[in-house]
Amino acid sequence: MQNTKILLRQRPKGLVRPEDFETVVEEVTSLSEGEALVRVVYLSIDAPLRIWLEHDIPLDKGLSLPAVPIGDVVRCFGTGVVVESAAASLPVGTKVDGLVGCQEYAVVRGEGGFTKPIPDHLPLDDALNGLGNSGMSAYFGFLEIGRPKEGDTVLISGAAGSIGVIVCQLAKMKGCRVVGLAGNDDKVRWLVDKIAIDGSINYKTEDIGARIDELCPDGVNVYFDNVGGEVLDLVLPRMARAGCVVACGKTAEYLDGPGGGIRNLGLVIEKRLRIEGFVTADYMARYEEAQTALLRWADEGNITWLQTVLDGLERVPEALNVFFTPGGAAYGKLLVKVG
Amino acid sequence: MQNTKILLRQRPKGLVRPEDFETVVEEVTSLSEGEALVRVVYLSIDAPLRIWLEHDIPLDKGLSLPAVPIGDVVRCFGTGVVVESAAASLPVGTKVDGLVGCQEYAVVRGEGGFTKPIPDHLPLDDALNGLGNSGMSAYFGFLEIGRPKEGDTVLISGAAGSIGVIVCQLAKMKGCRVVGLAGNDDKVRWLVDKIAIDGSINYKTEDIGARIDELCPDGVNVYFDNVGGEVLDLVLPRMARAGCVVACGKTAEYLDGPGGGIRNLGLVIEKRLRIEGFVTADYMARYEEAQTALLRWADEGNITWLQTVLDGLERVPEALNVFFTPGGAAYGKLLVKVG
Repeated sequence: MQNTKILLRQRPKGLVRPEDFETVVEEVTSLSEGEALVRVVYLSIDAPLRIWLEHDIPLDKGLSLPAVPIGDVVRCFGTGVVVESAAASLPVGTKVDGLVGCQEYAVVRGEGGFTKPIPDHLPLDDALNGLGNSGMSAYFGFLEIGRPKEGDTVLISGAAGSIGVIVCQLAKMKGCRVVGLAGNDDKVRWLVDKIAIDGSINYKTEDIGARIDELCPDGVNVYFDNVGGEVLDLVLPRMARAGCVVACGKTAEYLDGPGGGIRNLGLVIEKRLRIEGFVTADYMARYEEAQTALLRWADEGNITWLQTVLDGLERVPEALNVFFTPGGAAYGKLLVKVG
Repeated sequence: MQNTKILLRQRPKGLVRPEDFETVVEEVTSLSEGEALVRVVYLSIDAPLRIWLEHDIPLDKGLSLPAVPIGDVVRCFGTGVVVESAAASLPVGTKVDGLVGCQEYAVVRGEGGFTKPIPDHLPLDDALNGLGNSGMSAYFGFLEIGRPKEGDTVLISGAAGSIGVIVCQLAKMKGCRVVGLAGNDDKVRWLVDKIAIDGSINYKTEDIGARIDELCPDGVNVYFDNVGGEVLDLVLPRMARAGCVVACGKTAEYLDGPGGGIRNLGLVIEKRLRIEGFVTADYMARYEEAQTALLRWADEGNITWLQTVLDGLERVPEALNVFFTPGGAAYGKLLVKVG
């Protein structure tokens, strides 16, 4: 059986270019004991993939996630179906979610790896969106770390993205005043008209600080931050006392690094702020609880999730640039459908 | 009765100069109902006093502590004794703690102000040090926000200062590995020799990052931050996973503002860090609990607090510069004894 894969050829600088990658077709290798072969169906295209192509990610003292090695398959989460198995925990036909990489077929480990079975009733796209990493980020990040209270003002950057759009709806469901930041006028309108949040700001064309002042007259109680950088620095002085910044993503840094730095961090003292980062994988033992709740809220009509699907493995490079192209990020989750 | 007071004459730039202040002697005004006259005994000289002379402090959306107005008494916490009273809650002879200002006699309000009685058995100096704001900062900041666990590595900036030296000892008491940063070699030695912490770093002469790497080989679980700025930016990459930065002070910013900004803040995500600021006044309802605990630990020989006393109200300007003079900060609490 043949496997088409996208390899990293050189470290990109700025937006990725086609020549940063190489597409190769290889025979699928035979499985060792404990391994399974997964036919990849959807790839989850997320902003952090870009930084994995260039930089090691420090996780702890002496522990980091290395950048994708040159010549390796481009690292990516995705979902698929087991088509051959030498792993007792992953029989043929099992739906799985894991670090499958940008390829048609992935050899994964049944135990001790990043791969986990998906309950059979969950669609493979939802399993990467509202019921997968995006939903988990929104659920644990906003509810557990942000701890919103009824009447709070919640500000969300990347509000039209896969996580943001779910946070917008969870915040409305919790009785909060909700303001979203997005990168083009269509999204800004869409957030108010369709997602029914209270206000939205085009962070590329509007005076962000003045607009937050206008839309959040009592300050921001919870800032769900998907972008970091300058926007975060503008939000800090506009936080309400004892507010929380949920540090979920930093799209502003993935391409060009941290930039000029955050000058207003010291305000955490006078304003008694909490800034807290999280990684959804830490909550894996509680995914079922979150999925059950999100499904129930979806059934009740409180939340919905959206996706933009690009067809074909060859669209990975294009997809990787979407988050860094003015006004380009997809509505909701960005997926590449493989094969 | 005559009252000598130190007024702010002009906003200082950089270190304060004598001409930034004016000393005046005025007759004490008569008390209105609900007021008491306090003979000021000790002034608590803390780094933030400097910023109060120059800048408003934003506390919340639309709420800030204004800079000391030109012509007003220099704002300062202190302790003293009620010598005349028209306030039922503050009879003559009561020891009090409050925003008395840099003067010999302060008119304070019995209710609704910043002034609170001190239990009679507490000395007026301890009431500003280990049993006052410094002890409260160490107790609530380190124990409640830092949440240290046995075996944790705790890093403390301003470790020889009034709060730092108590945090050092609380951390040792909790079974942590403790490393302190201080601004001169005498203090650096003193922290290890006398306060018995595990390691110390001269942040003015040593390579801070390399020395933290050496002394905190497993990373920093709790960083108790009294300085902010560049040191914080060097500590962030050296935090252990799920570590906490307790944002207590920002001496690095009080004189010249926030400087170049924090470039490593984005690491809060991958490292799952929490950065949290606090103000001791928020814990006022629990001061007695903290004082009881600190007194017990002091009696048991686990902690001690230290102070440096400058004699005479006229030494306030000199005292205000101590925190910003290389190697100049006092050991433990810096107090001015009035009159």
